[in-house]
Amino acid sequence: MKHKDFDHINCSLAQTLSVIGEHWTLLIIRDVFMGLRRFGELQKDLGIAKNILSERLKRLVAEQILEKEKGESGFYEYRLTEKGLALQPILLACVHWGDNYRPSANGARVVFVDRKDYLPIQAMSVRSHDGRLLNPKDIRAKRGPGFSSDNSDTPLQSWTTAD
Amino acid sequence: MKHKDFDHINCSLAQTLSVIGEHWTLLIIRDVFMGLRRFGELQKDLGIAKNILSERLKRLVAEQILEKEKGESGFYEYRLTEKGLALQPILLACVHWGDNYRPSANGARVVFVDRKDYLPIQAMSVRSHDGRLLNPKDIRAKRGPGFSSDNSDTPLQSWTTAD
Repeated sequence: MKHKDFDHINCSLAQTLSVIGEHWTLLIIRDVFMGLRRFGELQKDLGIAKNILSERLKRLVAEQILEKEKGESGFYEYRLTEKGLALQPILLACVHWGDNYRPSANGARVVFVDRKDYLPIQAMSVRSHDGRLLNPKDIRAKRGPGFSSDNSDTPLQSWTTAD
Repeated sequence: MKHKDFDHINCSLAQTLSVIGEHWTLLIIRDVFMGLRRFGELQKDLGIAKNILSERLKRLVAEQILEKEKGESGFYEYRLTEKGLALQPILLACVHWGDNYRPSANGARVVFVDRKDYLPIQAMSVRSHDGRLLNPKDIRAKRGPGFSSDNSDTPLQSWTTAD
């Protein structure tokens, strides 16, 4: 099955893509973040084939990213679990990159603000342990104990140095 | 063509997924971040079919995420452009989610550290304008001028409130 493709790769990025990397999945998750709860609402908003939506939702429930339960209306509703809510930095990092590199000609499409003061949140960025903003070439990768010998060829000394 | 699927959706997430959402693409980008430069190196590391790798690389060059040029060795080499380097927060957000929710039994696979002090970077997280850590339900979405009437049905008042 396609969604198992990256399960064997011992890499946290590949593992994440195994769960959320399928076509449509992040847009479905976006819609649930935005407050859409029902199959029909999601289907209408995304214009996605019912069988694909059904399959994606089933997988997200199986992965405990979404919970499915009958709402007060009698319809089944999907809600994000804690594991699902924890995907927010991924979605926002994608949104901010899209804002910068695939902008709308009319300006920002959506701005995310802090509920407390209604000011825009910071752009998703890489920070040192003490909060300094780090540029892409300021960091490097170090092998941890979970780094298997399977992919020992990967040149971990790098992570954007090279130049 | 499949990669055009989300181009019509006026959403920065969908626009980003139009560029990097294809199967294998983020893993190819990961490998270039890690220092792999040549077609053969990428193909060997990923175990990917040559025609798929070739198509993905062509697209990434067309999108100005990678630059292709002849290296000193005489082989063509791929390097990240500024637009490509700007994908780093997306990759790291995926890595950190995978670290938490799809961990290796043996511990961290890879740890990203600041080159300056070799201490691990912060987990990718959402911050207010003045640097406060925000939880998923602490933010909301506001329409900007680029939000078209096409998707005015999307209930932007939310972004994980609902409960």
